[in-house]
Amino acid sequence: MQQNINKISVIGGGSWGTALMILLTNNLEKVGWWVRSQDTVDYLQNHHRNPNYLSYTELPVHRMHLSTNMQQIIDESEVLIFAVPAAFLKKSLDEAGIKSLKGKFVISAIKGIVPEYNMVISEFLETHYEVSHGDLAFVAGPCHSEEVAMQKLSYLTLSGIDAAAVEDLCQDFASWHLKISPNNDLRGTEYAAVMKNVIAIAAGIASGLNYGDNFIAVLISNAVQEMKRLLKAVSPVPRDSSASVYLGDVMVTAYSRFSRNRLFGTLIGKGYSLQATMAEMNMVAEGYYAVKSLMELNKELEVDMPVMECVYNIVYGGVSPHTEFRNLADKLR
Amino acid sequence: MQQNINKISVIGGGSWGTALMILLTNNLEKVGWWVRSQDTVDYLQNHHRNPNYLSYTELPVHRMHLSTNMQQIIDESEVLIFAVPAAFLKKSLDEAGIKSLKGKFVISAIKGIVPEYNMVISEFLETHYEVSHGDLAFVAGPCHSEEVAMQKLSYLTLSGIDAAAVEDLCQDFASWHLKISPNNDLRGTEYAAVMKNVIAIAAGIASGLNYGDNFIAVLISNAVQEMKRLLKAVSPVPRDSSASVYLGDVMVTAYSRFSRNRLFGTLIGKGYSLQATMAEMNMVAEGYYAVKSLMELNKELEVDMPVMECVYNIVYGGVSPHTEFRNLADKLR
Repeated sequence: MQQNINKISVIGGGSWGTALMILLTNNLEKVGWWVRSQDTVDYLQNHHRNPNYLSYTELPVHRMHLSTNMQQIIDESEVLIFAVPAAFLKKSLDEAGIKSLKGKFVISAIKGIVPEYNMVISEFLETHYEVSHGDLAFVAGPCHSEEVAMQKLSYLTLSGIDAAAVEDLCQDFASWHLKISPNNDLRGTEYAAVMKNVIAIAAGIASGLNYGDNFIAVLISNAVQEMKRLLKAVSPVPRDSSASVYLGDVMVTAYSRFSRNRLFGTLIGKGYSLQATMAEMNMVAEGYYAVKSLMELNKELEVDMPVMECVYNIVYGGVSPHTEFRNLADKLR
Repeated sequence: MQQNINKISVIGGGSWGTALMILLTNNLEKVGWWVRSQDTVDYLQNHHRNPNYLSYTELPVHRMHLSTNMQQIIDESEVLIFAVPAAFLKKSLDEAGIKSLKGKFVISAIKGIVPEYNMVISEFLETHYEVSHGDLAFVAGPCHSEEVAMQKLSYLTLSGIDAAAVEDLCQDFASWHLKISPNNDLRGTEYAAVMKNVIAIAAGIASGLNYGDNFIAVLISNAVQEMKRLLKAVSPVPRDSSASVYLGDVMVTAYSRFSRNRLFGTLIGKGYSLQATMAEMNMVAEGYYAVKSLMELNKELEVDMPVMECVYNIVYGGVSPHTEFRNLADKLR
């Protein structure tokens, strides 16, 4: 078998995986793409569109090396970018029989926590899949895939320990409509990305409950303070939490009409049951899983996070959003 | 003449002045209110509504001591709250023949700079109207007056040096739909409030130019970093810039549909001339004046503020928004 025919491959055929393929095929002659079903591969090859996500966008399929065989894609690539929902990452790797990713450079594009382990992705891949610490990176930023597909100017951050590798990989993402900066706060950016999905759920619940813009701004400000506290607890390095990768991502997710986490919260706030909300939505709201893991993690850390706790109590504790937000309101300022 | 028949009086009959009257009459038997025209006084007395602002809201006029005589209102009050546009503050005081406010406790509710002096309000009143430093305060926060009138839960901050006085005055604002916290960063909160109006103009221009949510989140994050730098330069005290009074006010102004500064920017971004934009809008966009004063002030401070500079170049330099934002985009990250 020929080794490393692709410099980079994307694992995951969802909305964000598709957006990443758009960016990478701008720069690279051939990019590998693992998607789950053969039907999707066939559709991509015949229609040059992803049938399920961003399907209004024509894709340069001639630059893609498509496969449903994850092991093959892994073997044939130097760099892997994981873009599957955090809750299904372990299952996807298990189903494909992947036991190790040793020797690969792995970029996570997943803003979530692996539920069974309460670990962010880089932590999980390092401890369970033999990826060395310097071979890990995280791509994030205020970047809805829909706008990447529309070629609206967007900004990403690539966080990793190996500055030279990160610098080099930035080149593969950059284009006239995508700017990307290196960053060395791998753990901090990952946790920020986990929290922003829960913050968006909180903003959605407030909106569903008919709180106004004034309240939502106070809610998000307080949640950003919680984020600073948690990041300090998990990784006490200096960082400017008003950088785009932290604050920008919170704002775009909490305020944007594209945010599925905000929509999830809005439905809950309007009084839909959890079951009805899940049924109403086609995509996974990462924040739903994230808040549970954050609360588990926080049993040890004991960071003061009333907004996170409020969302948890509503989504997992069955407490009425109305009551829980009335209590939360007294803690905000 | 009977002295101090009102504990507190509001100077200004605009939207925010009206909202403050709603809050204060919740708690106080009698609140003084200076408005410019006798017609407004008559309308208020006959219809219990402000004819020009928030006119869908019935006001408890029996608790208001209305007057067009500013000197009389000042003489009869212990505490004055100024809520006129910054650009007209000096003119209003001059027209009323006010030379000194000595002995009064003065709260500014004005988020702007006095253009002729490039000073925030507390600075101006201290140096030109003999108000002592400890008798100054600033009321601010993410608080659109429209939502106060709708009794949507909102949060304010009262910033001042005299902690006991500030604590006491907080009681006069608080109600079931308004929470208020004391703060001692008078200068910092004032400058933050000045900048947030310019940030909202920048967000509006971006939106008018058809940039997406991703870009606007990056723009605002970068502008918050500029705010931190400027605040450090004008008043180097420790502060958490993600508190509601700083970050929250930026977000509510930059994202809310009620923001006139954002609307001002949107029209400019869509290609309206400055004249047409001014004509289209009924209210003053404070940020239009603020950015000029900030740039004047920054000649000495030399803080790196590309977003402020960009808005200035568009609004005062006549540079095309399209060109100026393309240049700005290269400086953001």
